[in-house]
Amino acid sequence: GKAPEGSDFANYFCTYAYLYHQKDMLEDHKRTGAYYNAVMQNRRQFKDKVVLDVGTGSGILAIFSAMAGAKKVYAVEATDMAKHARTLVAHNKFEGVIEVVQGTIETIELPEKVDIIISEWMGYFLLRESMLDSVLLARDKFLKPGGALYPSHARMFMAPMRTNASAGRINDFQNAMYGWSEFLKEMKGFYQVDLDCLSESYRKEQKDYYMSTSAWGNVHPSQLMGPGTCFKKYDLHTITIEELKAELDADISMPIVDACGPVDAFCGWFDVEFKGSEENPADDPVKLPTAPDATGPTHWGQQVFMLHPSIDVAAGDSLATKVKVTRQKVNHRLLELDLDVKVTGNSIHATSEPRQFNWHID
Amino acid sequence: GKAPEGSDFANYFCTYAYLYHQKDMLEDHKRTGAYYNAVMQNRRQFKDKVVLDVGTGSGILAIFSAMAGAKKVYAVEATDMAKHARTLVAHNKFEGVIEVVQGTIETIELPEKVDIIISEWMGYFLLRESMLDSVLLARDKFLKPGGALYPSHARMFMAPMRTNASAGRINDFQNAMYGWSEFLKEMKGFYQVDLDCLSESYRKEQKDYYMSTSAWGNVHPSQLMGPGTCFKKYDLHTITIEELKAELDADISMPIVDACGPVDAFCGWFDVEFKGSEENPADDPVKLPTAPDATGPTHWGQQVFMLHPSIDVAAGDSLATKVKVTRQKVNHRLLELDLDVKVTGNSIHATSEPRQFNWHID
Ligand SMILES: Nc1ncnc2c1ncn2[C@@H]1O[C@H](CSCC[C@H](N)C(=O)O)[C@@H](O)[C@H]1O
Ligand SMILES: Nc1ncnc2c1ncn2[C@@H]1O[C@H](CSCC[C@H](N)C(=O)O)[C@@H](O)[C@H]1O
Repeated sequence: GKAPEGSDFANYFCTYAYLYHQKDMLEDHKRTGAYYNAVMQNRRQFKDKVVLDVGTGSGILAIFSAMAGAKKVYAVEATDMAKHARTLVAHNKFEGVIEVVQGTIETIELPEKVDIIISEWMGYFLLRESMLDSVLLARDKFLKPGGALYPSHARMFMAPMRTNASAGRINDFQNAMYGWSEFLKEMKGFYQVDLDCLSESYRKEQKDYYMSTSAWGNVHPSQLMGPGTCFKKYDLHTITIEELKAELDADISMPIVDACGPVDAFCGWFDVEFKGSEENPADDPVKLPTAPDATGPTHWGQQVFMLHPSIDVAAGDSLATKVKVTRQKVNHRLLELDLDVKVTGNSIHATSEPRQFNWHID
Repeated sequence: GKAPEGSDFANYFCTYAYLYHQKDMLEDHKRTGAYYNAVMQNRRQFKDKVVLDVGTGSGILAIFSAMAGAKKVYAVEATDMAKHARTLVAHNKFEGVIEVVQGTIETIELPEKVDIIISEWMGYFLLRESMLDSVLLARDKFLKPGGALYPSHARMFMAPMRTNASAGRINDFQNAMYGWSEFLKEMKGFYQVDLDCLSESYRKEQKDYYMSTSAWGNVHPSQLMGPGTCFKKYDLHTITIEELKAELDADISMPIVDACGPVDAFCGWFDVEFKGSEENPADDPVKLPTAPDATGPTHWGQQVFMLHPSIDVAAGDSLATKVKVTRQKVNHRLLELDLDVKVTGNSIHATSEPRQFNWHID
């Protein structure tokens, strides 16, 4: 089920039309600074080149490209933010170089092919929003052979972690069910209507909400019980849209290094790298990580997938894990994560049967 | 601009598919109890009648109608909540009487005309959600001549009030603008990009958000500085869809009775009445008020429209006010309120020029 175009525009693009939202992204300096460095430390790549900025928002990446000496920058933006981008471009004296085009990249045309596509398309857990689809479409339609994508590579990571938030969630869920029992009594007492037949559905709805929805987290490195394990790499120059849209499957083994208690949750994050293309490699590659970091998170934070009950482990054990990431049926910009987890190792916690988990990333 | 059907479904209907949301409405006993009374105290009207419940949700009003002796009830619901309604109907042994039909009232067909249409269609400030459109459409398509609407009448009210929330809003707005200045400095310092050309747009966006958006309020009667003035009455049997969709204009004078300070805001609310139709009047009319009430609010609360700066008045003055309510252009289910306010009376606060205000009800 692909969501209809109209609803996609209303739901997905809506917030990007507000300056406060663009500001939230711009003032994430780990993010904006990484793009700035990726462009400025590779000026030689941008000098006299034609650049396409997919989803220019405020126009910032187009402006960086122009500052680095690009000959021409097409800055494409779906929402009315395009008008603000135009103002910003003019005010910073780049009207001669940057052309702001309002429209979706899927529907607009450009008068020429481009040397570089730059875009900040990453969502929570990398893939949420599915905006990479649009970047690959732009690549196939507008990028010259040998041209470069900024960023060029992306990776997804997962690690076991401890957190108290997990217990809080169970509590909230139990409170919700307690509230429901009170509600049943009232409905019966006041109106002689028995709603108990909906209790199972309500429990399912609430459980889904409290226990099977991932949470934005500002995870501290000390919460991790082992290193992050990379479960997916994308080379953005070669991956096809079909591969990207297909189910993501991976088999990984996550080592438990530090176990003073059970695994309460999994922590997911990503990084992207700016390495240029094979034909036009970056002179000074830049990385934008979003891993747990004692100096604070990016605006993406990390995704926390809580476990109920938690998984008992000992240091030296591993979590043999089948990972599956798919798009949600009703809204293709949202995700589902399925994990099959088995504890392996010599501790008493080793399991023969995997435990299965499912979360949605809403 | 009518919102496209797809986006309407995604945005508007979405929450109604969750039991927690239906529960929020059901456990508003001032609401649910008023419908219960309206049906049960008028059993004679429902006995052996054919009833249509527009937007049955959990099925509750259809069940009340069946309990009151209806011969047949068509319970129409757009969302998947229809499935839960079906369960509830079966479990409460009304399958013989109630037929749950999943679909929008705009698209479904019924095998017969009905004697009574019951519906809980009221949104914030009465008209938000524009669901009354669907009820009138159902009336014109399915109600027998002389048939009755439950509720049958609706009224909208406004009164001047005092509130500290107003000062808090100004503060939030000023903080947002302070944050913006810091942000400008950072962007200039870190990336040599000057965003000051967007300051006016940001100010407008934030002002709109903090100062021109109405707020849900649980207003206490002691906050009112005068009685509520009715500025609109609807007789649901006679109003046409065209009249309903047209701009709502009214000229009212709101008396200031109790003025120990300026008017900080206007408070808006509504009531509906269940009086039946002229041909089939209710035996025992029921009213569902949502006015400020010391015993606590309905889930609608009141709508609070804050003033910046506030309006100085003295007891004995009146606020001569032109009221205009329109639908928002982008989303026709949301509203705009325009007020032109002049202080009249013998106090020093009397003004010759009206002050103009605009809010959106989002
Ligand atoms: N298919 C598409 N076509 C055009 N713009 C798109 C798009 N999908 C997403 N966008 C836009 O892409 C932007 C992503 S946010 C990044 C904004 C800016 N490049 C920055 O780095 O700060 C949003 O403004 C969104 O409206
Ligand atoms: N045009 C339409 N066709 C069918 N159902 C509609 C509709 N517009 C709104 N609805 C449904 O009407 C309900 C309004 S809420 C009221 C629910 C229930 N009658 C009660 O009183 O508790 C929602 O469930 C919504 O999905």
